[in-house]
Amino acid sequence: MTDDRHDDLTEEEEVFFDSVDGVQSTTTIADEELLDDINVLVDARSTAALMNILTDLHSADIAAIINELPEEEARYLFELLPPEEASEVLLDLHEHVREELIEELSATRLTEIVEELDSDDAVDIVAEMDEETAEQILDTLEPEESAELRELLAYEEDTAGGLMATEFPVVEVHGTVEHAIDAVRMIAEETPDIYEVYVVDEDGTLRGIVDLKDLLLVRHGTPVADIMDAEVISVRTDVDQEDVANVMRKYDLLTLPVVDGENRPVGLITFDDIADVIHEEAQEDIQRMSGILDDTDTSSGVFDIFRGRLPWLLVGFAGELLAALVLSSFEAELSRVIAAAFFIPIIMAMGGNAGIQASSIVVRGLATGELALSRTFRRLSREFMAAVLNGTICSALLFGVVYLWIGDTYFGLTVGLSLLVVITNATLVGATVPLFLDRMKIDPALATGPFITTSNDALGLFIYLGFLTLIYL
Amino acid sequence: MTDDRHDDLTEEEEVFFDSVDGVQSTTTIADEELLDDINVLVDARSTAALMNILTDLHSADIAAIINELPEEEARYLFELLPPEEASEVLLDLHEHVREELIEELSATRLTEIVEELDSDDAVDIVAEMDEETAEQILDTLEPEESAELRELLAYEEDTAGGLMATEFPVVEVHGTVEHAIDAVRMIAEETPDIYEVYVVDEDGTLRGIVDLKDLLLVRHGTPVADIMDAEVISVRTDVDQEDVANVMRKYDLLTLPVVDGENRPVGLITFDDIADVIHEEAQEDIQRMSGILDDTDTSSGVFDIFRGRLPWLLVGFAGELLAALVLSSFEAELSRVIAAAFFIPIIMAMGGNAGIQASSIVVRGLATGELALSRTFRRLSREFMAAVLNGTICSALLFGVVYLWIGDTYFGLTVGLSLLVVITNATLVGATVPLFLDRMKIDPALATGPFITTSNDALGLFIYLGFLTLIYL
Repeated sequence: MTDDRHDDLTEEEEVFFDSVDGVQSTTTIADEELLDDINVLVDARSTAALMNILTDLHSADIAAIINELPEEEARYLFELLPPEEASEVLLDLHEHVREELIEELSATRLTEIVEELDSDDAVDIVAEMDEETAEQILDTLEPEESAELRELLAYEEDTAGGLMATEFPVVEVHGTVEHAIDAVRMIAEETPDIYEVYVVDEDGTLRGIVDLKDLLLVRHGTPVADIMDAEVISVRTDVDQEDVANVMRKYDLLTLPVVDGENRPVGLITFDDIADVIHEEAQEDIQRMSGILDDTDTSSGVFDIFRGRLPWLLVGFAGELLAALVLSSFEAELSRVIAAAFFIPIIMAMGGNAGIQASSIVVRGLATGELALSRTFRRLSREFMAAVLNGTICSALLFGVVYLWIGDTYFGLTVGLSLLVVITNATLVGATVPLFLDRMKIDPALATGPFITTSNDALGLFIYLGFLTLIYL
Repeated sequence: MTDDRHDDLTEEEEVFFDSVDGVQSTTTIADEELLDDINVLVDARSTAALMNILTDLHSADIAAIINELPEEEARYLFELLPPEEASEVLLDLHEHVREELIEELSATRLTEIVEELDSDDAVDIVAEMDEETAEQILDTLEPEESAELRELLAYEEDTAGGLMATEFPVVEVHGTVEHAIDAVRMIAEETPDIYEVYVVDEDGTLRGIVDLKDLLLVRHGTPVADIMDAEVISVRTDVDQEDVANVMRKYDLLTLPVVDGENRPVGLITFDDIADVIHEEAQEDIQRMSGILDDTDTSSGVFDIFRGRLPWLLVGFAGELLAALVLSSFEAELSRVIAAAFFIPIIMAMGGNAGIQASSIVVRGLATGELALSRTFRRLSREFMAAVLNGTICSALLFGVVYLWIGDTYFGLTVGLSLLVVITNATLVGATVPLFLDRMKIDPALATGPFITTSNDALGLFIYLGFLTLIYL
């Protein structure tokens, strides 16, 4: 993510756009100069001039600007936007900025905005309101729209039902191309993004999908049954969003129909929802691996950062007290060979690294479905062999270092052998624990946090000092 | 990723499908029973029966089956597929399975397959062949297709040029809807996925984009200029794939035009390429964080696992030798207060965890563009405050534990104070190093590997033992 354009700018000018060289737009692209202007105009509350500038900007860029403004200025700028633009911008804001804004907006303004949105986005916005406001908005909307939103609100946020939009064109399987085009026309006003038409039979059961491209190219009067693709992959409303993302990625799907228990289409999920899911799920994995609870990002405040991190720090704390106990139980041995303490860090760190290397691959493989259950044994045996190879090399090196440094062959052999066993053991623990958790229906990602490192620390020290006592002393 | 269906299956039946309850298809879904059948039929080389089964399966499922077969059986099954199906399956295979297969296939078969593919996929397959085979295939193809592929081969794999397909419909800005539909028809045979038509002026410069939906709904003879969206975002061929993914995600784009230096469209990137990029980039970050070089996945062999992991283990090794040196330089102090050694693990681990927590968030924020340069100071000061909060709580706890255990107030205070300083310092190192690397145009993800943990280990021990010597002894 390097950007040469930044080189010749002063600190002040490096505003908040991570502009990328080679990305271009026929609309105004928010650049540093423009952003300085906007800041000045916002301070001066120059409404007319700002509205002029804003009409030329993409909603995602306006959102990026508002994300950076203090609360009052953010609200001022947001209130200048016409409802259609405002609804797009609201979706693109950082979650905490959006929540602050929603709290401040009038019910009338919120209703305007919700009316502009597709059902899947509208429901996300309504879900972020406090209950009272949400009820007020839902009561103001047209009965049909309100009923739809209430229905969508009932689905878990991270399931297919929570992701889907309910605007999609449907045509009966006995209809013609013209019926399909009419179906597109009927919802084209509500939603700009239409790529396919769902084909259903008399019971409303999903039978096939027709591409818009095929509607364009075939002769008038062609039955939709002739051009539909009957190989339909669909998901039920209760399927988890990570599974939805995996299915869409596996089968390269642009849209995925969501069906009820009777296989009747009730919604659709589009690629862009999924890009966000893949991004979110990866973010979640990374946060878990780093020992952070899920709900922080780069824009979180001090208290959120603090709260997101403390729990795992405390788990690590408790675990390392166990390590202290292990060490204290070898106090006599340690005071006889004080040099043994020098290698505590290397034993701990190498075990920790080897364990994390193994666990992160297994956890990720389980999450994406790449690693299925039957391959468990193959995976474990490969991990074991790789660990022995790595452990042998590191141990030989450590023996060499200890021998040259401390000048004690027997001590060097003990430390080296310990390292081999610790690396192998930590690798197996790292690879096994997530598989075991998965079997127990517990989220295997738990194993990548400080949990596995910490248990490997205590275990590794026990192995090291145990060997020292048994072999060397 | 729990799957209740697996509960009542024996070990043998849990074959390699991570089937998800609620995902359905009107085509045959590969289930355990079917897969057992296929295995038996492959062993018996029952060609006719297998071909019958394969025609009902989705290419992604066939690929999943082939991924699991031994090399010879995999080739046998693959050779049964008609070219069109074979080309799809080849794309969906694991990279190492695909490479093995490509090595074994005849030039005629490979040519057939490459001819079936869209240019962006074809070029990926050709790039995986050895040079001689690639030349042979390119010479056999039609001159036009061959020239196209040679051109695409020249782009870096991880840039917009490397991702793009070159099949897209173009219409002149003075044309009508009928011209646009003709443009779609012209390439519909080559490529099944068409969602938009690019509008260019006389020089070939990109001027706008027309949705297929709008082509369907407007009256005959409508000028494309009337229905095109002139707000076009595009990327040059040399833009990095991670930036491409960020742009498409930010602006919610289904397809992204790729242009040359004169802003003439030369290709397009579709959502599904990007889903893979987001997945890959996250995978890469996770691997870096875990101390693994990029090229391993769950299906890698022993030697790949070994090779991917050794480098970072060795970096950790070298770093921890430094920690050993720090400890040895405090040998006299350690032998006076052997209890000081008990708390080496907790000091190291807490510093390590705090450092990783801070660095992973900053690295991820830089990668997605969420954390822009001007917010550096704000970020750092928030990190600092959160670290002081976390450090204070952990330190107070540690003081309590040491006081109750060892019964030495002064020693407890020293250990506790050290922990506070170590956590704060490690957090700042974790947050600063990636920002610094980013400024220096070095990939900040380097900072999340064992590198930062290891330097925090040595630094933390130095702080701890330094305080011990200065304050307590």
